[in-house]
Amino acid sequence: MHELNPNVSVDCVIFGFDFEKLTVLLIDRGQETKNGPRLALPGNLIYNDENLDQAASRVLDELAGIKNIYLEQVGAFGDPNRICKDADREWLQSIRAEPEARVITVAYYSLVKMSDYAPHASSFAKTAGWAPVSELFELAFDHYEILLAAKEKLRQKIKVQPIGFNLLPEKFTLSQLHKLYESILDKPLDKRNFRRKVQKLGIVTALKEKQRGVPHKPSLLYKFDVEKYESLSENGFDNFGF
Amino acid sequence: MHELNPNVSVDCVIFGFDFEKLTVLLIDRGQETKNGPRLALPGNLIYNDENLDQAASRVLDELAGIKNIYLEQVGAFGDPNRICKDADREWLQSIRAEPEARVITVAYYSLVKMSDYAPHASSFAKTAGWAPVSELFELAFDHYEILLAAKEKLRQKIKVQPIGFNLLPEKFTLSQLHKLYESILDKPLDKRNFRRKVQKLGIVTALKEKQRGVPHKPSLLYKFDVEKYESLSENGFDNFGF
Repeated sequence: MHELNPNVSVDCVIFGFDFEKLTVLLIDRGQETKNGPRLALPGNLIYNDENLDQAASRVLDELAGIKNIYLEQVGAFGDPNRICKDADREWLQSIRAEPEARVITVAYYSLVKMSDYAPHASSFAKTAGWAPVSELFELAFDHYEILLAAKEKLRQKIKVQPIGFNLLPEKFTLSQLHKLYESILDKPLDKRNFRRKVQKLGIVTALKEKQRGVPHKPSLLYKFDVEKYESLSENGFDNFGF
Repeated sequence: MHELNPNVSVDCVIFGFDFEKLTVLLIDRGQETKNGPRLALPGNLIYNDENLDQAASRVLDELAGIKNIYLEQVGAFGDPNRICKDADREWLQSIRAEPEARVITVAYYSLVKMSDYAPHASSFAKTAGWAPVSELFELAFDHYEILLAAKEKLRQKIKVQPIGFNLLPEKFTLSQLHKLYESILDKPLDKRNFRRKVQKLGIVTALKEKQRGVPHKPSLLYKFDVEKYESLSENGFDNFGF
């Protein structure tokens, strides 16, 4: 039964961080549709002989050349009209065997270091790349709604688990971590308060090393205390109180 | 397009509390299958013109006569072999138009006061009733796995939100609340410690009233401080530290 199931798809929300903003991996479906948004989350129908996790990994690799990342489920999205906008229909007619079929989608999300994953488009993706989440307002299908739901999951997670290990380089400044938290929570956080909380959690260790080649006074570099970070990821911690 | 979609179903995990144990609403699929578990979560295929939330509400009403409850998504379950056990296949052949179709299911869960909802079976459910979660080890399809995933959601929720308002009567004893928490967390909790934490959260108010007609020394009754409870439900609180 290695055939596509016409009624079930998966979509992937892959978050990155460009040191200023939270970003998301998008594909451009190209010129086939004259109107409507051309950007979409990487996603496609599942095969009947794979499970949902496998489908998400495969689709992400096929459309954006990204492999071997841990994907977590956001949930299922099944509005009967989710793929009925004209531009979406038009596009589906060019790529699907049964473009009129009802499709419910299962969304996944992940956090990755952008520097480790250079997306390259293939299959029906014309290009693949990163876009700042805060600058997006519309995507194909219900993908904008899915993006917001994934971001909300992230916002819930940040309250009870440390976040950043998968998004920041090995060595980073507290300013970078601070900007990451602000961009996930969508609000300014008092800098001194933030530093105090992070240090109280004990998840970062100061290095005897500063930034180099920056056009401002170089800041002290930190790394995550992996043992502490993992223990808090597993057990959760007291609500961080943002 | 008011037709069933052969590839997508919904299943409902409705939790209750019988003052001793966490319970779950199950249907008995009856004698059609000679082997294998007869008990299942209420669930069925979705119609093509309804969304997933609507499908879950409808199915719960159709199979167990339970209406108007708030259902939250657990997630999607899509193992390609999830409906392939012999007894399950046999049963599907008796109730479905395309019993061989691949079905992925979207699970929902809810917490209800058992006294407010007397399930009555209809459609293909022969009986519907409550069973203690801790006494179950096998259900139809992958429903036992779904039940465990829903219980895990509940366990995560209990760490950052108060729970009990939807499961306990208006007036309850702290012992009852304590048993509820123990049955969700699957472990004994120190009674004094528990009382101290609950009172610190400020979610309960002592009434000037004791239990009546109990075969032991009557305990003081409490009610939830709805305002405080709702505010904590919305904003979450510091990890309760269990």
